[in-house]
Amino acid sequence: MAEADIACAIIQGRLTAEVVLRTDQVIAFLDHRPVFKGHVLVCPVQHVDTLLDLPDDLVLPLIGTCRRIAAAMGPALGAQGTFVAINNVVSQSVPHLHVHVVPRSKGDGLRGFFWPRTRYVADEQAAYATLLREALG
Amino acid sequence: MAEADIACAIIQGRLTAEVVLRTDQVIAFLDHRPVFKGHVLVCPVQHVDTLLDLPDDLVLPLIGTCRRIAAAMGPALGAQGTFVAINNVVSQSVPHLHVHVVPRSKGDGLRGFFWPRTRYVADEQAAYATLLREALG
Repeated sequence: MAEADIACAIIQGRLTAEVVLRTDQVIAFLDHRPVFKGHVLVCPVQHVDTLLDLPDDLVLPLIGTCRRIAAAMGPALGAQGTFVAINNVVSQSVPHLHVHVVPRSKGDGLRGFFWPRTRYVADEQAAYATLLREALG
Repeated sequence: MAEADIACAIIQGRLTAEVVLRTDQVIAFLDHRPVFKGHVLVCPVQHVDTLLDLPDDLVLPLIGTCRRIAAAMGPALGAQGTFVAINNVVSQSVPHLHVHVVPRSKGDGLRGFFWPRTRYVADEQAAYATLLREALG
């Protein structure tokens, strides 16, 4: 996460962006290089590195805003669905938690993002579940 | 969203899965066809179609559980980061809200999922922002 924190720069007015919504706790602006046009980034105003660092009291303001923006993409953009995603550390190009909210339409070609899938062999699935259960206490 | 609701089937015990965490409000189990091994799906126990239908009082239980599972992927699986994503309607293969929590490592090849990006021409970005602001009221 060595790249510039453009979220703080936008929040502090040092960088311009097309802001679509702002509250005391959350800011939402257009990604200037969208996956599809209308692609929004939703960030906590308070600097937070990743989802792992998001305080409980900001979860509903942040995710509720994502829900509201996703709901607006139907009437505003004619979207049939939405993709909501967070990269934590790996592939996270801006070192400030940001949720991508992307308008989707059937046949838009993004389906490939979640492929190819892999398969578990033999008892491997149970072993992975055990590792996670143990770490979750 | 015509496919089977495997989330309700797992919650009701009609289908088996490697459950890694369950509370009264949330269930988390391994995706049997993972993007990377250890890929978890986190669902509200109450049937909810998409993020747009998620009641406020389930946002923190659901997303807090995703945060906790993402945090566990470091110690449990050696993950360097995580990918947290929701498909709403388009590309949503299970008609019950489910959050993908996927362990990530640098160079794992998933970076491509968010590419190629497109570009706005001329005043197009401002026009899209206006459409969204108007729909957001």
